[in-house]
Amino acid sequence: MVKIGILGVGTVGASVANILETNADILEARAGKKIVVKSGVVKNLSKDRGVSIKLSDNPSDIIDDPEIDIVVELMGGVEEPYRLVKQALENGKAVVTANKALLAYHRYELQEIAGNTPLMYEASTAGGIPIIGALRNGLTANHIESIQGIMNGTTNYMLTKMINEGALYDDILKEAQALGYAEADPTFDVGGFDASHKLLILASIAYGIDAKPEDILIEGIENINQTDVAFAKEFGYEIKLLGIAKKVKEGVELRVHPTMIPASSMIAKVDGVMNAVSVVGDNVGETMYYGAGAGGEATASAVIADIVDIVRGNQDPMLGYKKPLETGMELLFESEIVTNYYLRMSVIDQSGVLAKITKALETFNISIESMLQKPHRDDELVKLLFTTHACQEEKIQEAMIALKKLNCVHGEIAMIRIEK
Amino acid sequence: MVKIGILGVGTVGASVANILETNADILEARAGKKIVVKSGVVKNLSKDRGVSIKLSDNPSDIIDDPEIDIVVELMGGVEEPYRLVKQALENGKAVVTANKALLAYHRYELQEIAGNTPLMYEASTAGGIPIIGALRNGLTANHIESIQGIMNGTTNYMLTKMINEGALYDDILKEAQALGYAEADPTFDVGGFDASHKLLILASIAYGIDAKPEDILIEGIENINQTDVAFAKEFGYEIKLLGIAKKVKEGVELRVHPTMIPASSMIAKVDGVMNAVSVVGDNVGETMYYGAGAGGEATASAVIADIVDIVRGNQDPMLGYKKPLETGMELLFESEIVTNYYLRMSVIDQSGVLAKITKALETFNISIESMLQKPHRDDELVKLLFTTHACQEEKIQEAMIALKKLNCVHGEIAMIRIEK
Repeated sequence: MVKIGILGVGTVGASVANILETNADILEARAGKKIVVKSGVVKNLSKDRGVSIKLSDNPSDIIDDPEIDIVVELMGGVEEPYRLVKQALENGKAVVTANKALLAYHRYELQEIAGNTPLMYEASTAGGIPIIGALRNGLTANHIESIQGIMNGTTNYMLTKMINEGALYDDILKEAQALGYAEADPTFDVGGFDASHKLLILASIAYGIDAKPEDILIEGIENINQTDVAFAKEFGYEIKLLGIAKKVKEGVELRVHPTMIPASSMIAKVDGVMNAVSVVGDNVGETMYYGAGAGGEATASAVIADIVDIVRGNQDPMLGYKKPLETGMELLFESEIVTNYYLRMSVIDQSGVLAKITKALETFNISIESMLQKPHRDDELVKLLFTTHACQEEKIQEAMIALKKLNCVHGEIAMIRIEK
Repeated sequence: MVKIGILGVGTVGASVANILETNADILEARAGKKIVVKSGVVKNLSKDRGVSIKLSDNPSDIIDDPEIDIVVELMGGVEEPYRLVKQALENGKAVVTANKALLAYHRYELQEIAGNTPLMYEASTAGGIPIIGALRNGLTANHIESIQGIMNGTTNYMLTKMINEGALYDDILKEAQALGYAEADPTFDVGGFDASHKLLILASIAYGIDAKPEDILIEGIENINQTDVAFAKEFGYEIKLLGIAKKVKEGVELRVHPTMIPASSMIAKVDGVMNAVSVVGDNVGETMYYGAGAGGEATASAVIADIVDIVRGNQDPMLGYKKPLETGMELLFESEIVTNYYLRMSVIDQSGVLAKITKALETFNISIESMLQKPHRDDELVKLLFTTHACQEEKIQEAMIALKKLNCVHGEIAMIRIEK
């Protein structure tokens, strides 16, 4: 019999406990041993958790219990779980965590501490989708060329509503909050930070890159509006908040931002709260993994898959490699990213304006690929929307500053990156 | 160092040998050991294989070579590979096979023979997509409610062309043959047999069902025509050749047939030669896995993933379970399948005909859900197309016999099953 202790019995923790009970038949058949939750630890003992397991408010009751084989960490936060997971590993206990923030900051220290003790984290990225297993086991024959993931359901729900139903950003945010998809302070989701944690985890398996959220480009969906949506539709794009890891000659780009992608691509077809991760390998080509990225039961499904793998004797290296991966896989600076860009600006409706703008862009070696001009409803400005050929991030940022200084350009310039 | 022997050095075998060489850097990092191909066995030594490995025409040079740790079986066929894989396992060698036919017929004997020796087969199903790993490891927490897979690229290519471009079946079959997607005798693909092998492998992991191709319903795409395609479009369906495994109260349905599925479902959006498998679990909900289902390099990607897993010390049970899975998971008879149906028939253009047909259907408790009537171009018949509410396969088969006996019905009646 294998005994489990759960640190943090919230929605996911309760689902883990309940599924281990209700699906005990298949779990024992698949793992080869009975799996039983011995106890859980919570902050507040007076709250009903809807589980029948023994609860305590002292983590030591799990971490230091010699009977417990596997510690499941579902607390949230970073430093406290780090301390507890470290202690559990040092006590020789296998650990399963769903904590993306913990891994975004401490995965390399934890790998070191774990050594040969299993430390698994399928649930940390894209909820119930077994993407960690796919990348760590299923695609090992490949140099990973790119990863593009819809790894945040809240923002995908919002963008889908904005695109399919013409909903306004503020309205749809309120709706997402009412439905429980978005927090009262939605920044972590809509600002792209949640997705960045997941991207960093995947990038470690693919490229062995040790980066923290602060090191990479993260932009949210707050500035997307219906003008952008209409442009995207007209030019055959969808807009998705993507986590992107991409190997180029000079190194690896890691970035999270709203992205225009061809509407015909598989990942563009993923709507609503669903998640999906597209992985391109040098041999396998494109593969994609789709499913629920959140929710108690879907996340618990991934937590339990890890438990079963541990019980079966899984010895996979935590981050998928036992010796350093490819050389030359350094993280590129934000300024070094190369992609196509969409720009939206308001300009005076006068002859010669377009010439001024294209000339300003030429200074930075940026050329326009497609353009759309639309009248404003209530003043004498026109909206100028265009996409550029591929150029360096540094150049587009400089060009935007230069464009804003032109007299003919009014207000802010909005930019969305494009992946072809 | 781990030494590999390859039985059968065709397209996939050559890709395996070449990738193990070109991607040796990441493979050693991920597996923790150098992986080297020691030799290959082919039937015809005079043919150039485009590989630099030592070749022999005697399987014993691999099977009985004490230096070889892992035997990769890529020969095709059933009985000869069965004999050789058995011998390799008995010699204590781990085996990786991409041979779906071998597994469709002998997976349970092989599991028995293998015991604790690894026998892996990721490449047998859906090429480069790591669907075996997803099902055997990623979704272990779930009772599998259903599997729906596009597991044959040839037929998906043909159906996509028929639907998107209005191509005729015979023309597109010729094109697929010219492109190398379809064999000179296309029966194995277009008849659904290839997909059935893959379905049986997945059904074993999901339900522990021991069935052979002869035991299940297999129908091909040969009778689909542009009338069906037009109807599907009008009523919001796509037509896909699906392998379906579905748990119902009474047992498990296993079937391969052209299927009308809602155009809004993710699997309906998978076009061209690509494969995808949708798996619904009781906790995770729907997940989907997408990628290349064939091709030397994509298939080799899966073969090598298995090799790496074996080198890492993977101890997963071959079919994903160590003790019998759920009880009551018996294979249902074809006649017991329950689903919705689409029927196409030609009837005389006369009043009262519709009443006769609905009355005939009522005799079998079948009711019509939607209907479309279209004139024939060149005679006095009309095409009657309709879908039924859910009913039992046995009833629809009996109803079709009864309908054909009516004087007002001319020629054959075509039927396509619908999954909602």
